[in-house]
Amino acid sequence: MRYTELVTPVRTIMTPGPVEVDPRVLRAMSIPIIGQFDPAFTAIMDEVMSMLRAVFQSKNQWAYPVDGTSRSGNEAVLCSMIEQGDKVLIPIFGRFGHLLAEICRRHGAEVHTIECAWGEVFDPDEVIAAMKRISPKIVAIVHGETSTGCIQPLKEIGYACRAHDCLLIVDAVATIGGVDVRVDEWMIDALIGGTQKCLSVPSGLAPITYNDRIEAILQKRKKVEEGIETELDRANIRSGTVIGSNYFDLSMLQDYWSPRRLNHHTEATSMIYALREGLRLVLEEGLEERFNRHKWHEKALVAGIEAMGLSLFGRKEQKLATVTCVKIPPGVDGESVRSMMLKEFGVEIASSFGPLHGKIWRIGTMGYSCRKENILLVLAALEATLVWHGFAPNRGEALQAALNCYQENPMNEKSLL
Amino acid sequence: MRYTELVTPVRTIMTPGPVEVDPRVLRAMSIPIIGQFDPAFTAIMDEVMSMLRAVFQSKNQWAYPVDGTSRSGNEAVLCSMIEQGDKVLIPIFGRFGHLLAEICRRHGAEVHTIECAWGEVFDPDEVIAAMKRISPKIVAIVHGETSTGCIQPLKEIGYACRAHDCLLIVDAVATIGGVDVRVDEWMIDALIGGTQKCLSVPSGLAPITYNDRIEAILQKRKKVEEGIETELDRANIRSGTVIGSNYFDLSMLQDYWSPRRLNHHTEATSMIYALREGLRLVLEEGLEERFNRHKWHEKALVAGIEAMGLSLFGRKEQKLATVTCVKIPPGVDGESVRSMMLKEFGVEIASSFGPLHGKIWRIGTMGYSCRKENILLVLAALEATLVWHGFAPNRGEALQAALNCYQENPMNEKSLL
Repeated sequence: MRYTELVTPVRTIMTPGPVEVDPRVLRAMSIPIIGQFDPAFTAIMDEVMSMLRAVFQSKNQWAYPVDGTSRSGNEAVLCSMIEQGDKVLIPIFGRFGHLLAEICRRHGAEVHTIECAWGEVFDPDEVIAAMKRISPKIVAIVHGETSTGCIQPLKEIGYACRAHDCLLIVDAVATIGGVDVRVDEWMIDALIGGTQKCLSVPSGLAPITYNDRIEAILQKRKKVEEGIETELDRANIRSGTVIGSNYFDLSMLQDYWSPRRLNHHTEATSMIYALREGLRLVLEEGLEERFNRHKWHEKALVAGIEAMGLSLFGRKEQKLATVTCVKIPPGVDGESVRSMMLKEFGVEIASSFGPLHGKIWRIGTMGYSCRKENILLVLAALEATLVWHGFAPNRGEALQAALNCYQENPMNEKSLL
Repeated sequence: MRYTELVTPVRTIMTPGPVEVDPRVLRAMSIPIIGQFDPAFTAIMDEVMSMLRAVFQSKNQWAYPVDGTSRSGNEAVLCSMIEQGDKVLIPIFGRFGHLLAEICRRHGAEVHTIECAWGEVFDPDEVIAAMKRISPKIVAIVHGETSTGCIQPLKEIGYACRAHDCLLIVDAVATIGGVDVRVDEWMIDALIGGTQKCLSVPSGLAPITYNDRIEAILQKRKKVEEGIETELDRANIRSGTVIGSNYFDLSMLQDYWSPRRLNHHTEATSMIYALREGLRLVLEEGLEERFNRHKWHEKALVAGIEAMGLSLFGRKEQKLATVTCVKIPPGVDGESVRSMMLKEFGVEIASSFGPLHGKIWRIGTMGYSCRKENILLVLAALEATLVWHGFAPNRGEALQAALNCYQENPMNEKSLL
């Protein structure tokens, strides 16, 4: 059998990830690779660390990607911290809280969960009360839940965790690069970001950061890999247990990302090129400007959705700026609408999971996908598709509402996106 | 701080990986991405599976990449098979055998090893005798050891493992796409390949394949992820223990790569594009032709090395065609030579690990790096650098020997590489 060259359709991707990639990032991936210990490459690794610190708003020494998709970062951080029977508190407000619980259970933690309805977030005091009651080693929580479009305030939880000597580990996969995330100020001990959402880099790396409280635990569990350890390494006496994974052992990953450059995996060269370019574009735009851009396009999208006669799911004050959840009107087949939008307009929006499946659509406004022409196209496509499906929206209102929003936008002239 | 666009030096990469990437693969990575559940993308996933089967020379249903670097494939397969206390036999003949042992220990296996000197491989009978003595659930072994440049014959081991109902798991990271690997014929139950070596795709995915003996164990341990499981999934009664990792749980990965398309991670879109293009080029060249190309360039390289007056490390009949280990002559500082070759000629060769560190150089001839001009350049650069370091090679002989080799080469006219 002969295979042809790769041919792909052009899509407008308005899901909560993966989202469209800036052409400059795509071009960076086509740069020829160099060796993993080439000084020119290790210099790029150092630059990526320094750019990540800026995006994480942190002075942490450790800020580097795990070579896997976003959830690999969650698993790497959690399994490097959890020893058999450690108590972990996980406040769950959507699918990705369940994922954190699942990862912790698989790695032998005693998992305690508190749950609120999908579409709500926690009052920080609820989490703090549970933390005081359970006295866990770790509180692990999602920042932006893409499954429900809600954002969890973290600052008070961070302060309380620090005061009670509990580690706060945050899944910020959906927020980093799109919404304000302040690792140091909020006293987050470890945080995991994603590439394929607001950073607009393809999926395949999970940038993480952690502080010296986390590192102290890593040092207690440190083991250098068999086959490359020295006599000195072998003589190292551990007070903790060896981490249950080789691939996700952060004590080894940080040796590789440190001047020691101790060989572990072979770094994913082209993905590092992409991440570096993606981070460069974030810093060039400016964090504040980028967060504002996300808010502004969200505003135009929401104005359009509501003008059409559709309702948002969830409370506005808990809304994640980068994901807009729309209630599927009664009598409309949500999957048929999604599939027609993709087929006829080349526009992709998302469904949801678990209790929300079939009840809401999720529209992402993330990174490079978060552009005026995309907002206007998704509104036009959604309206026309709903009309086709027999639903009666307020015809022609959505685009006027969005255009009005953009008209008032002081960023309008300045921002390329 | 302002960061400039990414600027990288041009390198001739003659290490055992990562190696140079075909420009067509690099271009494929700059194709705009599409969503992970877009029918256009799931069709690409299916194509990749079918191409992998061809490269693995297997009819296995399951052939897909794990989203991580090569060792993530080893860990995924091993941790999906190992339950606490399971016996695993690992014949070690270099660094990557130690890695297999380390991974198995971290996942709770009772590890039994047999070792031979670095630079040797096992007589299959030794492995078979140990297997009969220990009666392990699994024999895990490396096919091509890049740390020593040796290749382990597998066929007899495969037959014996099958006859004794023992699983054979093979790390073929360094051989797949460069050297003959016959998964079905050799009765290999699971095999892990690498992208950044003979497939000449950047690091970041680990293509694996496994048969129904492996799948039967996965089915016993199967657990659908919390947050997306149905009532039916919850009612599933397991006869095995849940796999100790979410990210590496092959029972979930295969659900994602199957028509069920049950969401797990977000597939690394651009890396999948690269893998598809890399596999397409392998199949376009033809497996037999590709293996012959690797052998022919190895022959020219070895002729040049020996004509220069240098000696190979290891026995020729056990030599891995894609890695040539050269003894560092007495009195020569191996690292200084490597660094001068990189700095002055832009040519990268590798050192080795453990007992061989400082004793040998390793020159890779893999995939797209395995080209005539690269062979000639590495010989020229090595000779000139050795002269500069005061070693007296037979001046001018290496290139003549290699050119003679190419002159006799019947492939010379046909092969682009």
